[in-house]
Amino acid sequence: MTTSERPAPPKGGFTARRLISIDDLADGDIRYLLKLSEYYAGFLRRAAPAPRRLAGKTQINLFFEDSTRTNLSFELAGKKLGADVINVPVSASSVHKGETMVDTAQTMAAMGAHIMIIRAKEEDLHYTLDDLLDCPVVNGGAGKREHPTQALLDAAAVRSEFGTLEGLTIAICGDVKHSRVAGSDARLFQRLNANIRFVGPKHLMPADDQFTNIPRFDTLKDGLDGADVAMGLRMQFERMDTDGREAAKGFFEEFGLTHETLKFAKPGARVMHPGPMNRGVEICGALADDEEKSLILRQVFYGVAMRMACLDALLTRGE
Amino acid sequence: MTTSERPAPPKGGFTARRLISIDDLADGDIRYLLKLSEYYAGFLRRAAPAPRRLAGKTQINLFFEDSTRTNLSFELAGKKLGADVINVPVSASSVHKGETMVDTAQTMAAMGAHIMIIRAKEEDLHYTLDDLLDCPVVNGGAGKREHPTQALLDAAAVRSEFGTLEGLTIAICGDVKHSRVAGSDARLFQRLNANIRFVGPKHLMPADDQFTNIPRFDTLKDGLDGADVAMGLRMQFERMDTDGREAAKGFFEEFGLTHETLKFAKPGARVMHPGPMNRGVEICGALADDEEKSLILRQVFYGVAMRMACLDALLTRGE
Amino acid sequence: MTTSERPAPPKGGFTARRLISIDDLADGDIRYLLKLSEYYAGFLRRAAPAPRRLAGKTQINLFFEDSTRTNLSFELAGKKLGADVINVPVSASSVHKGETMVDTAQTMAAMGAHIMIIRAKEEDLHYTLDDLLDCPVVNGGAGKREHPTQALLDAAAVRSEFGTLEGLTIAICGDVKHSRVAGSDARLFQRLNANIRFVGPKHLMPADDQFTNIPRFDTLKDGLDGADVAMGLRMQFERMDTDGREAAKGFFEEFGLTHETLKFAKPGARVMHPGPMNRGVEICGALADDEEKSLILRQVFYGVAMRMACLDALLTRGE
Repeated sequence: MTTSERPAPPKGGFTARRLISIDDLADGDIRYLLKLSEYYAGFLRRAAPAPRRLAGKTQINLFFEDSTRTNLSFELAGKKLGADVINVPVSASSVHKGETMVDTAQTMAAMGAHIMIIRAKEEDLHYTLDDLLDCPVVNGGAGKREHPTQALLDAAAVRSEFGTLEGLTIAICGDVKHSRVAGSDARLFQRLNANIRFVGPKHLMPADDQFTNIPRFDTLKDGLDGADVAMGLRMQFERMDTDGREAAKGFFEEFGLTHETLKFAKPGARVMHPGPMNRGVEICGALADDEEKSLILRQVFYGVAMRMACLDALLTRGE
Repeated sequence: MTTSERPAPPKGGFTARRLISIDDLADGDIRYLLKLSEYYAGFLRRAAPAPRRLAGKTQINLFFEDSTRTNLSFELAGKKLGADVINVPVSASSVHKGETMVDTAQTMAAMGAHIMIIRAKEEDLHYTLDDLLDCPVVNGGAGKREHPTQALLDAAAVRSEFGTLEGLTIAICGDVKHSRVAGSDARLFQRLNANIRFVGPKHLMPADDQFTNIPRFDTLKDGLDGADVAMGLRMQFERMDTDGREAAKGFFEEFGLTHETLKFAKPGARVMHPGPMNRGVEICGALADDEEKSLILRQVFYGVAMRMACLDALLTRGE
Repeated sequence: MTTSERPAPPKGGFTARRLISIDDLADGDIRYLLKLSEYYAGFLRRAAPAPRRLAGKTQINLFFEDSTRTNLSFELAGKKLGADVINVPVSASSVHKGETMVDTAQTMAAMGAHIMIIRAKEEDLHYTLDDLLDCPVVNGGAGKREHPTQALLDAAAVRSEFGTLEGLTIAICGDVKHSRVAGSDARLFQRLNANIRFVGPKHLMPADDQFTNIPRFDTLKDGLDGADVAMGLRMQFERMDTDGREAAKGFFEEFGLTHETLKFAKPGARVMHPGPMNRGVEICGALADDEEKSLILRQVFYGVAMRMACLDALLTRGE
């Protein structure tokens, strides 16, 4: 699948002006990002320097919520394209001197940001800032709802293994309720014509009126039947109340992804996980580390390649 | 005012060997820095890469006192000129293993620093280090006394709006007593032939024997009369004792900068603030965000441009 | 000793594939690193940009244990060679979300690390990771046992002063027991044919069955007799139990390195210390700051030059 030639931009150009939700992307944008991430993956695989298309551009990472791996992935992506990357250490920032999050973001933008990556618990902050700021806003994770670059990198990782998502059956397993990844994944994968399922105990499923077109299963045996991919999710203990934690006990016995339970899926099925993993809770360490079955480190790898694609497309529009 | 040509260095060369106080700068140095910051502002406005005049140079930011925005502004300025910029995470540093601040600075210098930006509560540390270190020392904020790059960027922002500071009346309002910005601003603006005033309640004014040539007003009505610029200052609650906080109650009613109180000043007057702002304490959010009246984000913008000018001038002497 | 020409790689090539222990280096590797560090020291002295031999390479600093100066030294070394350097802020990292250190390291490697610098309390972690990761692992400090780049930079600093280590007598003084530097230094210096001694109170000496070929002295008078170098070590109070701290009282009176005690050594003897120093505990501030007698800041300087040499050699093999 590695292509050594830079893909042509979509007909009519790359249309998205921001990346807050998967819905910001036209179908052509999505196809272009998948191809462009594959192009950049080629440089990463060969350990070759990528073209420094963002030289002289300033990328500001404004993470109001800690996420080492997402932050580093964006940082690496920007640096590999030659951007000047600035991490704003929010814990030490002026937010503690009474400044608002909006003030902090506007100040950073006024310093000459060409693109700003923002992560926050608040689900609407990105839209507020998109209205105020001149530069493109990229969502590095928002509340429980969206994590679009994670969904894009997951799609790129699946595509690198199966060639396409079209017609694949992907079972998203575990703590769907508290996961922003689950929602973004489901929306993106459906647009790429995959069949999506949620698998997990009822108390970890989204509300009944959400994702009504996605079938739900409460056993791995049924949920993985015919699946090409089993996507584990991190049990988000820190977002659960005490009862939730109580209910999570015994989760591994019933819903843990293992070599055994993966046999419920198709032969050749692969396991994925957005990380960080709770080994022995939602996934068995031996399965996670099985290079034959697990795409987990490949997801991390495509994280950098896909974020390179997103930064490049938003800042250069493929020209 | 944007100039696309690099300004010539002052006749006889750029003379300052350090930037600890505004007093380190000759008049020709100041004029050169204002022109050079305008030159770099042009690159920032066009989102164009600036010449990488500091390639191969090492800039070390040693902030013994947290200040996200000043630190990031210097970091961006250095990176945009191609310097290798290192932030020393002082909170995690060997200062906690019993090492002195002087040891830490000497160690960083020995790693090959070409320029060192230092921020500290201690007002004399910069002079001690200037004696010990071979590289230029830049003051990123010292005690209550000096913040010279803030004064320079404020002057650049005023100049970008009014063309000159000569003959302007600038009212510095609020917590003058605890502000290092007020002092640096007053000294610099007077050298640029502006008329300076302090406006605020008596308990927030400097001691009587300081700044004796600057008129003081204790109402906005009198203090803003005839002013071209009203410069708000952050109320430094963290440097006040309990009585000070008590006295600060009701401050907004009497001294808050608002669309209403700005009418005391000249028509066309502008409001400024070094940030971070306490909205609703020293300034009304609506005025701060009014792009017609407020130069606040322009100050942030010139922060990067002016620091590029300072780094360039100190390291290349304009050659 | 400064050479302006790049040294030729060892005959048969640079053989080390990792740098976890001094034992990973062949004799030819060590000689090459000493010459290469001198070559890079020349660039640093002239404040000239070094060749960007690592452009497009990603260096990840993964410090599970704080060490500002070692971390910054590696960061600067990588940046000066043009590498994209990423510091993983471990204290904020996913290790706190239940992820293991091995998971964190594997994730960082999957992001496209070409070389990883790891510091940890755990003495075997580096070997575990070396088995798992494709990229070279460099030890930035491990437990009490090894700190190979510190030993190499110490050797480079000694060589810059005396021209060679061959035949020199080097007294390693103080808290040998808790120092990873002491062990690495001793092993390396012996391979370079220096005579090594340990000097200090019995309770700060290594166990009797360790370093059996190194003579031990329990007074500075005897231990420094005939020494060319007195190497002080930081008293590692944080690794001592209460009794240890108690026993350390009065240490300076008996074992403190001062202008006076240095007279026990050869005329022209030099003092060294890996830092951070406890002034007035293991060394007198006046001696540490005496540019005639002290190589301490030169050690810091060679820290950057030697780490440039190590990164370059491991990633390019001298080609």
